[in-house]
Amino acid sequence: MGSAAEIQQVLRMKEGIDETSYAKSSYIQKQVLSLTKLVKEKAIRELYCREHPATICIADLGCSSSESNTLSVVSDLIETVEDARRDIGNGPVEYQVYLNDLPKNDFNTIFQSLSSFKDKLKQQLGDDFGHCFVNGVPGSFYGRLFPSNHLHFVHSSYSLHWLSQVPEGIEDNRGNIYIARTSPPHVIKSFYKQFEKDFLMFLKCRSEEVVARGMMVLTILGSSIYNEPYNKESCHMWELLATVLNDMVSEELIDEKRLNSFNIPQYSATAAELGVLVEKEGSFTMNHVHTSEVSWEVNENDENSYDHYDFVKCIRSVAEPLLTCHFGKAIIKELFQRYEDVVRVSMFEEKTVFVNVTISLTRNG
Amino acid sequence: MGSAAEIQQVLRMKEGIDETSYAKSSYIQKQVLSLTKLVKEKAIRELYCREHPATICIADLGCSSSESNTLSVVSDLIETVEDARRDIGNGPVEYQVYLNDLPKNDFNTIFQSLSSFKDKLKQQLGDDFGHCFVNGVPGSFYGRLFPSNHLHFVHSSYSLHWLSQVPEGIEDNRGNIYIARTSPPHVIKSFYKQFEKDFLMFLKCRSEEVVARGMMVLTILGSSIYNEPYNKESCHMWELLATVLNDMVSEELIDEKRLNSFNIPQYSATAAELGVLVEKEGSFTMNHVHTSEVSWEVNENDENSYDHYDFVKCIRSVAEPLLTCHFGKAIIKELFQRYEDVVRVSMFEEKTVFVNVTISLTRNG
Repeated sequence: MGSAAEIQQVLRMKEGIDETSYAKSSYIQKQVLSLTKLVKEKAIRELYCREHPATICIADLGCSSSESNTLSVVSDLIETVEDARRDIGNGPVEYQVYLNDLPKNDFNTIFQSLSSFKDKLKQQLGDDFGHCFVNGVPGSFYGRLFPSNHLHFVHSSYSLHWLSQVPEGIEDNRGNIYIARTSPPHVIKSFYKQFEKDFLMFLKCRSEEVVARGMMVLTILGSSIYNEPYNKESCHMWELLATVLNDMVSEELIDEKRLNSFNIPQYSATAAELGVLVEKEGSFTMNHVHTSEVSWEVNENDENSYDHYDFVKCIRSVAEPLLTCHFGKAIIKELFQRYEDVVRVSMFEEKTVFVNVTISLTRNG
Repeated sequence: MGSAAEIQQVLRMKEGIDETSYAKSSYIQKQVLSLTKLVKEKAIRELYCREHPATICIADLGCSSSESNTLSVVSDLIETVEDARRDIGNGPVEYQVYLNDLPKNDFNTIFQSLSSFKDKLKQQLGDDFGHCFVNGVPGSFYGRLFPSNHLHFVHSSYSLHWLSQVPEGIEDNRGNIYIARTSPPHVIKSFYKQFEKDFLMFLKCRSEEVVARGMMVLTILGSSIYNEPYNKESCHMWELLATVLNDMVSEELIDEKRLNSFNIPQYSATAAELGVLVEKEGSFTMNHVHTSEVSWEVNENDENSYDHYDFVKCIRSVAEPLLTCHFGKAIIKELFQRYEDVVRVSMFEEKTVFVNVTISLTRNG
């Protein structure tokens, strides 16, 4: 497993709405959306006030199957435009919203909550609210997804750190499943090279689809540590999972060769790395960089409190389809029970955070 | 059951890809698509040659979950435009394709076959083929679905005879589940009134969405019998189902009251009825009417041969969600076993056909 075609088949958030599904477990992604709310709102307000399109085309790339996360982004963006529109005194706007993810994403779950979403929107926004049309767009954002010169605003959160494929030439990343303390330098370089290639392709495709002066706000699970290829923020969750997998290898529950051929298709870039690539591609100007942190544990600003169990559910909903595809269904339950134990110990011993890097870009005119 | 909100929840073709699914059973709908191929191709060719848009926006309304049916329509339309484009000597076109159905439709099944669909398309159409973007649009076509002035070509096959709700005031259509020989005249009128209201709403919504001189090709399960409210072509399949349901009532397998409150939300209009409503709404001009027939039995032009068993599967994939919702899951198997028997007898005794009415419309400029 690892080619682009294979990753397209297996990289998805866990479908459905049961307890282990992504829709029910993605509280970290939810916190990230809340932390980046102001950046998004500033950008779309600026866009609307400058261009005031009668139909505004908005895309959420990598929307996943959590209808509450993806639709709350959409409703925040729409509310912001509605406020701006009323301030200016403009007439109703039509919203053409595109929700994108890979074809195996569970779109049915999102679609079935659209009717109540629209009812709520109308109730909130009153009688002179125009129309909101929501479309599902299955496909990889590392390829073209929309007509030329079509989108006004692009949003993506916690998706662009996923690579289109497992990097090539990392066979000797043995015992690891991602960049780890013990990864050889060329392995780390391979991860970056794949990210560079993918992110440049992403920018190129979007440059054709986004109208002149259109805007993008992109958030990734990133890194704040410069000039050091290994960073705990993005690597630690996978190192803990690797520990468990290695234990299961030594107990002969998992074949060693299978473990050695498994790597997570991810790269967590720094803001500087993103900046270099945006400049290299050349179609967009970076307006703004924003970094934030989400603790693995309780977020004090959140009314709910989360513990290691919620953290494991969250990681599981992201990783289970990849793991099942590579190791088979049989080991999954045992694997995550053990993962729960090592995560509990780790969270007791030290505080770990995810670093979110958000960039706001404008399409050059 | 019967309000618009309820019908939106339960009117769908049976999901998935197993033997009783719509995707695997919709051979009649497939034959209809083949019979109306030339009408569609003529219309989209005319549209392209007159307007030659760089991005052509195509909508299939009521696409259902049969990816082979809905995607074969899309590929026929695209091939036709590509031929026309090459004849004229134009450059590549971008296709923005919208597949619409109610939110409970199984979009996941369609989305998962898109990748192989696009590969095939590229292979067929060669190197100078532009892009084809496919979007899922969940929602009722009796409301707005697309931005104003956006669509170039609208297609709908075997969907617009489904009403938005069960007509009101038909409580005394007892023992029947649709317009039947024994239906009181006011019941038949109620069915027509609901169709009139729905079809006018459909035209009004599309008139806002379709560009000036854009085109629509609509096919319904219709009727060729004028001036007679009851027509066997569209009523017979439901009369046979009513026979079985009444038998099961008399055997106390189904509650009589439940049967009396069940009606199929359908109306099969004649070409003349469609023409009157198109003129009444006023935004479109009717270019062309085409009628065709599909036998319940073997279609001699088809390489496969079908029998009563296939017919029952086809009707079942359409009606099962409605029936399950109203009568419960427990009776479904028995119901369709009995239905198979009465259909076999009916097909032995007489030939019955479905009448397809196709209209080709142009948006007034």
